[in-house]
Amino acid sequence: MPSYKLAARKYNAQDTVIEIPGPHNPVSIGAGYCTVIAGPCAVENHSDYIEIAQTLKSIGIHILRAGLYKPRTSPYSFKGLGGEGLKIVEEARQVTGLAVLTEVLDVRDIEDLYPHIDIFQIGSRNMQNFSLLEELGRTDKPVLLKRGLAATIEEWLLAAEYLLDRGNHKIILCERGIRTFEPYARNTVDIGAVPIIKHLSHLPILVDPSHATGRAEMVGPVAKAAVAAGADGLLVEVHQHPEAALSDGRQSLTPEQFRRLYAQIGKLAELEQRILQ
Amino acid sequence: MPSYKLAARKYNAQDTVIEIPGPHNPVSIGAGYCTVIAGPCAVENHSDYIEIAQTLKSIGIHILRAGLYKPRTSPYSFKGLGGEGLKIVEEARQVTGLAVLTEVLDVRDIEDLYPHIDIFQIGSRNMQNFSLLEELGRTDKPVLLKRGLAATIEEWLLAAEYLLDRGNHKIILCERGIRTFEPYARNTVDIGAVPIIKHLSHLPILVDPSHATGRAEMVGPVAKAAVAAGADGLLVEVHQHPEAALSDGRQSLTPEQFRRLYAQIGKLAELEQRILQ
Amino acid sequence: MPSYKLAARKYNAQDTVIEIPGPHNPVSIGAGYCTVIAGPCAVENHSDYIEIAQTLKSIGIHILRAGLYKPRTSPYSFKGLGGEGLKIVEEARQVTGLAVLTEVLDVRDIEDLYPHIDIFQIGSRNMQNFSLLEELGRTDKPVLLKRGLAATIEEWLLAAEYLLDRGNHKIILCERGIRTFEPYARNTVDIGAVPIIKHLSHLPILVDPSHATGRAEMVGPVAKAAVAAGADGLLVEVHQHPEAALSDGRQSLTPEQFRRLYAQIGKLAELEQRILQ
Amino acid sequence: MPSYKLAARKYNAQDTVIEIPGPHNPVSIGAGYCTVIAGPCAVENHSDYIEIAQTLKSIGIHILRAGLYKPRTSPYSFKGLGGEGLKIVEEARQVTGLAVLTEVLDVRDIEDLYPHIDIFQIGSRNMQNFSLLEELGRTDKPVLLKRGLAATIEEWLLAAEYLLDRGNHKIILCERGIRTFEPYARNTVDIGAVPIIKHLSHLPILVDPSHATGRAEMVGPVAKAAVAAGADGLLVEVHQHPEAALSDGRQSLTPEQFRRLYAQIGKLAELEQRILQ
Repeated sequence: MPSYKLAARKYNAQDTVIEIPGPHNPVSIGAGYCTVIAGPCAVENHSDYIEIAQTLKSIGIHILRAGLYKPRTSPYSFKGLGGEGLKIVEEARQVTGLAVLTEVLDVRDIEDLYPHIDIFQIGSRNMQNFSLLEELGRTDKPVLLKRGLAATIEEWLLAAEYLLDRGNHKIILCERGIRTFEPYARNTVDIGAVPIIKHLSHLPILVDPSHATGRAEMVGPVAKAAVAAGADGLLVEVHQHPEAALSDGRQSLTPEQFRRLYAQIGKLAELEQRILQ
Repeated sequence: MPSYKLAARKYNAQDTVIEIPGPHNPVSIGAGYCTVIAGPCAVENHSDYIEIAQTLKSIGIHILRAGLYKPRTSPYSFKGLGGEGLKIVEEARQVTGLAVLTEVLDVRDIEDLYPHIDIFQIGSRNMQNFSLLEELGRTDKPVLLKRGLAATIEEWLLAAEYLLDRGNHKIILCERGIRTFEPYARNTVDIGAVPIIKHLSHLPILVDPSHATGRAEMVGPVAKAAVAAGADGLLVEVHQHPEAALSDGRQSLTPEQFRRLYAQIGKLAELEQRILQ
Repeated sequence: MPSYKLAARKYNAQDTVIEIPGPHNPVSIGAGYCTVIAGPCAVENHSDYIEIAQTLKSIGIHILRAGLYKPRTSPYSFKGLGGEGLKIVEEARQVTGLAVLTEVLDVRDIEDLYPHIDIFQIGSRNMQNFSLLEELGRTDKPVLLKRGLAATIEEWLLAAEYLLDRGNHKIILCERGIRTFEPYARNTVDIGAVPIIKHLSHLPILVDPSHATGRAEMVGPVAKAAVAAGADGLLVEVHQHPEAALSDGRQSLTPEQFRRLYAQIGKLAELEQRILQ
Repeated sequence: MPSYKLAARKYNAQDTVIEIPGPHNPVSIGAGYCTVIAGPCAVENHSDYIEIAQTLKSIGIHILRAGLYKPRTSPYSFKGLGGEGLKIVEEARQVTGLAVLTEVLDVRDIEDLYPHIDIFQIGSRNMQNFSLLEELGRTDKPVLLKRGLAATIEEWLLAAEYLLDRGNHKIILCERGIRTFEPYARNTVDIGAVPIIKHLSHLPILVDPSHATGRAEMVGPVAKAAVAAGADGLLVEVHQHPEAALSDGRQSLTPEQFRRLYAQIGKLAELEQRILQ
């Protein structure tokens, strides 16, 4: 198997820092920063989404999760508002000035999403959806590439290579847990992936403790571990009423829990000489 | 997580048998049959493909592998002839009368492939590519759904449910090995998946010993194990010159090796009271 | 890591056949034979054990499971009769003439067991209990070495090497399922281990479909798969009243189910030109 | 399967703190402390061991690794000095006043080791060596119980239960990586195990980043992650000349690297309000 070139550390001795223009102000992901992206699993309705966006902005974040298309294991689960929710997202973006991150599942949706979102997300199930990788490789927007559930680090970097090879160099990796035999948490966070990626590649890496663990009580410890291990940031689910969430409530923090975690992350970021944002 | 309904054994007490019309004669997959689908990993050029198709027909098979779009871990590997190869496939189909199976990676290719192929394949990397599942769920052609590399049996049946729920009931499952810690073979064939699927579902199940093991010397024993365990058939790679194959040569049988295996499979099929085809 | 030498195929081009003297008549394990070892998970009491031994002998087997020391995940589970049961085992052995296989957990028990048993078993949890390997490597009795739950094939052969290196060359390997993410069955049978072991080593290999699957309804299909893949035999749990067994009843066949399976195994053994015993 | 009782959080709402008397002064493991146990993988010879013990004491540690019996995958690898090395360990202990931790592999060695060591270690391969668990459960010395390579957290707590049930309540758990499909590092550190154990049990938990990763360059980031996640301490390999170590040199830090890491750990411990020792 030919290996990755553009994703390799030797292609770029300096850590890549990605600047996201955002609706009002730019925000950076990479060396020197600890960037926390937060928000509910899915956009559920207008008022709740605008409210949580404002709350999270007040806590200090700069990038908002904006789940519109939800990949669901069962065809009978809530699949998100889809394109219908895009107006809500755009409003939240303009009202708060937060940049937004949205997962895209289908190449045919890229065009509609493009003007309204700041970072495209490729979810773990689509890490090797090569059509999607190639199409997003042709855009000029940053792409957050989640690790597949059973992807080796080499395969993950090769998936990033698909994007880089098409010309998009704004790639952010995101560890979100791998599948193992251990049944207690949803997945097993591969914390070692953080130093490994730093060693093998120049690309920034975030960690998503919410999807990885599936349990709100584990989010804090794992988030702190990720920052201490050198991750460039986090992806955290926050919901006003986790018990009433249409998806993944079990793993969502309340705004109050998130506020406390954000403060703790700030202290760790300081030890690592990173600017929290 | 809501579970599968249409894929469940209780939805259909009888084993589903899928009839594939084929270019000239129909062929069946399911109870009472042991159906062997064979061919090279990828269509590489006109003359080799027509030749191997004729050889395989002479050995006795009824369905031919027709790899046009190859999902490759690295962007720098050979990705198949794509649409360019479709004329070659159609010619092989007409000359031999064999039905053909083709993997589709992108929803935008379905329409072009539709008139020329007999079974669509969803590969393991796309088992949870829900757009692809939904689009193929709307066609009336049989779909072979490979198990994802780290998919549980429940997730696999839920992926089948996406197809069934959209109206396509001609679904064939295919076990192709799962990812484990054992490094010797490419993947670990989950032979227990055969009786489990028979217990939980009415859908037919094939086994692909070639992709699962990645080693030609293991293909025969694993193929025989699959049939003895009750699989409804096999997917086997055969290449005139495995050492010169553009992809996956390491796991391909020569026509002569395949001929011997096909005879052994015939004896096992007889013990299981299945018609080899 | 230095690798195995005495266990390697190149050390012995011929397949090793192990002759077990037995209380009355010898029985062989290895090339040319398909040897089925059967019996309850544990010896529970005198009358039931003598009865099942006689029933199994009448069905045709030559080697009996004789579980005295049961390794249990919880300290609060039934742990077997221990040394107390040895008289029952010896009686069953003399009455039926069947050879017996017993798992040993502690080096201090070897001496007491030695005169009364025909094959020592090292269970999967003890595959790397090096003290136990070394002590059993010094005896002259055959040893059945189960694969560890997460042992690679190389580690398994290196564990065999510990026994061989101490002078005991009567080693029988036994695949009993590996731990994977799939939750339906207790473990995942690595059917590919059979041809891999045949390729890398000269030692015989059995498969234990009962412990591997933990489900009686899967035992038959997996047992047949093992023999078709080239295994030298099986280890099968049989209990008069599975629902009342003190351990592992869920995976035990009734004598009647075993009788039917034994007949089917006979036909497969015949195809593989092996003598069923 | 009956579950653990004495290891459960509900048996003891307070976190257990274990006091190790030590040769001169006591040292604690548990709530309020961050205890770093360090030393070479194996005791190799007198002068090197005394030297590294003194160096590590000068850096600040209170407990020394004292590897005498090394469980090795291959019978042809260096297996440690065994009982021969005990005098060296006792001297290091007396000269430095450091407590020592030694892995025991065989129940027959416990008596000889008992007077000279402060903590017994049960290695990952022996987590379900029930004879060893029962014998160490009868002593009054603290036992560090490593998680098995493929042990679930429930199985690990049940192994602790064997020790507790025999009367030894001084049990320290140690996460040392689990086996997954990812080949880059030796094992995958399950960082989530730290908050899970804190949730399910009252027992202290350490993390061993050295054995878990097998790579010196990963030890620092993973060690920091462990402390940030709430671990009660670490087990770290340090060797004067890692490249010349008789075992596991690839993962050993030099004293200078360890000194820097120890300082960083100190800052993290402070954030977590734990006393570094």
